[in-house]
Amino acid sequence: MSATPPFKTSTRPRLFTPGPVEIPVRILRALSQVAPHHRTDVFRATYTKVSEDLKWLHQTQGEVLMLAASGTGAMEATVVNLMAPGAKALVLVGGKFGERWANLCKAFGVPYESITVEWGNAISPADVAAKLDADAAITTVFATQSETSTATWYDIQAIAKETRSRGKRLVVDAITGVGVHPLPQDEWGVDVIVTGSQKGLMSPPGVATVSLAPFALDAIEGDKLPRFYWDLRKARKSLPTGESAFTPPVSLIFAVGVAIAMMREEGLENVHRRHAKLAAAVRAGAQRIGFSLFSKSPANSVTALLPPAGVEASAVVKRLREVHGITVAGGQDHMKGKMIRVGHMGSYDLSDIYVVLGALEECVNALGHKADGACSAAREAWEAAS
Amino acid sequence: MSATPPFKTSTRPRLFTPGPVEIPVRILRALSQVAPHHRTDVFRATYTKVSEDLKWLHQTQGEVLMLAASGTGAMEATVVNLMAPGAKALVLVGGKFGERWANLCKAFGVPYESITVEWGNAISPADVAAKLDADAAITTVFATQSETSTATWYDIQAIAKETRSRGKRLVVDAITGVGVHPLPQDEWGVDVIVTGSQKGLMSPPGVATVSLAPFALDAIEGDKLPRFYWDLRKARKSLPTGESAFTPPVSLIFAVGVAIAMMREEGLENVHRRHAKLAAAVRAGAQRIGFSLFSKSPANSVTALLPPAGVEASAVVKRLREVHGITVAGGQDHMKGKMIRVGHMGSYDLSDIYVVLGALEECVNALGHKADGACSAAREAWEAAS
Repeated sequence: MSATPPFKTSTRPRLFTPGPVEIPVRILRALSQVAPHHRTDVFRATYTKVSEDLKWLHQTQGEVLMLAASGTGAMEATVVNLMAPGAKALVLVGGKFGERWANLCKAFGVPYESITVEWGNAISPADVAAKLDADAAITTVFATQSETSTATWYDIQAIAKETRSRGKRLVVDAITGVGVHPLPQDEWGVDVIVTGSQKGLMSPPGVATVSLAPFALDAIEGDKLPRFYWDLRKARKSLPTGESAFTPPVSLIFAVGVAIAMMREEGLENVHRRHAKLAAAVRAGAQRIGFSLFSKSPANSVTALLPPAGVEASAVVKRLREVHGITVAGGQDHMKGKMIRVGHMGSYDLSDIYVVLGALEECVNALGHKADGACSAAREAWEAAS
Repeated sequence: MSATPPFKTSTRPRLFTPGPVEIPVRILRALSQVAPHHRTDVFRATYTKVSEDLKWLHQTQGEVLMLAASGTGAMEATVVNLMAPGAKALVLVGGKFGERWANLCKAFGVPYESITVEWGNAISPADVAAKLDADAAITTVFATQSETSTATWYDIQAIAKETRSRGKRLVVDAITGVGVHPLPQDEWGVDVIVTGSQKGLMSPPGVATVSLAPFALDAIEGDKLPRFYWDLRKARKSLPTGESAFTPPVSLIFAVGVAIAMMREEGLENVHRRHAKLAAAVRAGAQRIGFSLFSKSPANSVTALLPPAGVEASAVVKRLREVHGITVAGGQDHMKGKMIRVGHMGSYDLSDIYVVLGALEECVNALGHKADGACSAAREAWEAAS
């Protein structure tokens, strides 16, 4: 335990990052298949199938549009397709990705109000209601379900109640939300949901999606901000023909198709429940060995941990990488060097949690904090959550 | 030869489309490798290497920026990064992709002049010079090297002479140009070149690139159109750290890396020469069996063919698919149903040309046009071009 690098415990690298995540072998194999041309019946059938699968995943009767882009591209697409020149937005900011909504509004000259909470804190639906009541000019609220930078979960169901009852649009960045946390789009009344392929969908990055609820299909019509590549009207128009407006990332769409097949086999409720149990296990195990939780409203996709007193977060990140072959994320912006973020979304199971906790336990002991029992604490929490 | 479908000659599908193209097995394997996280030294090294490789491919000392997008996304990026509000463009239109420049200008409110030539005709550099001289407000010319919709090659070297001597910017869509036709960016004086992964780069779609010449690095600075996801200043800023501004399509970047390794092994001049020979072979073989060339300035990436009298283009496309398992493209817009487009960019060799010509020969005979000798004509043209 006191051995120092280059002592290594691992034969291969392992990812516990908040996306891109570990890609299951079934999906890796889909990526290497010989791909048909995108304007053929074979691919049209796949494209249509994956579109339908995505509706299942979002629990919507609306339409899920796929874009060749990373998640930020799909976020930008929602801003330029929903906001008319001069229309006002409300952005909810609790971390780096909430800030991205604000930065997008700024870049496109969209006037906006914001609700900013301290990193790791929840956003109060009552505050959202008050802002909407105070400023009738606000047409659209931009929110986040799972703030990856702080590992914090926001109560979208409660926020959607406030927007729906006031006839406002709600756009949710659920990039680390979909496939992890429940988010039944139509039932909760969420107009638009954005996600990406490299999180709950267990695929490489490069496909991002915009899901329009049935009651939001008209939200993209009319005079909006300038749009061409992101023009969702074009995407909607070509969807019934099994095609995308522009060349789709064919191999990645096959990957996403396999990912959703795997989720269908497991069952969506079971996928969500598994993530809740994984998160409970990580939290319990990490706390047992001296870490504390950064977030007051922790997400099930990623866990942000503050190290025990006397242990540097950056030393943990480094030792995880050098000794254990494990990549986790550190903190961002003002939390840089102060916390570690352990991702556990996608195909992870309890055995994977033993892997990362076993390594974390080695790290804190090697770095001077004596502690034991991370794995048994994780197992107990997993069982308790079952 | 007179057998009718469902008689089939093929055990597997084959692509002769103008992109996406056949993906070599080495690249398929790269796609299925276990990918590291993008914010790790391992991936940073790959990212930096591929960026440098792309500079080699573009023959530039400038910078080649990668975007998670299809080619149109990169085209949009050049418009919003180069055009300041009110600045005027000149777009060169000889087909559907030239029109795309015009549509992008329209969508973003960029005032523009255009030079429009009949499909399949070359664009005269003298006309470009005259337009530039007549309207001093034009700052930037948007051109195409290889117009995929008409299989037409434009003389970018000559056009660049006119733009450079007048201090105007030249942006070239070389999506089916790069890796096929010579386009030494710095030597010719081309400010910006756009390409995509699924053409000469032999990879699946999903990475698009914007190459800035050394003398064009400043072209994206200052007050431009609204930009966030496409903001090339962000891409430039993160490039020296081996990172992209937003999550990169990791698996596709590995694929592009392997593609350029293959091109380096062959040698760039040899790659260009092979494409010239492939194109000569296709043209000669197809003409021998009664097809005629649509373009008066044919490209080396794709060949547009008009069928012999009495044979329907759409029947050829259908029979190629149903009997031979071969996908080619048909005509677009007003040429829909009137021509076929045979792609031959990427990894193709003379044997592949035998495949498509042998099948075309079967098709025209089956459809009532007696003809023979496509393969020998192709071989002769290949040898003559060697």
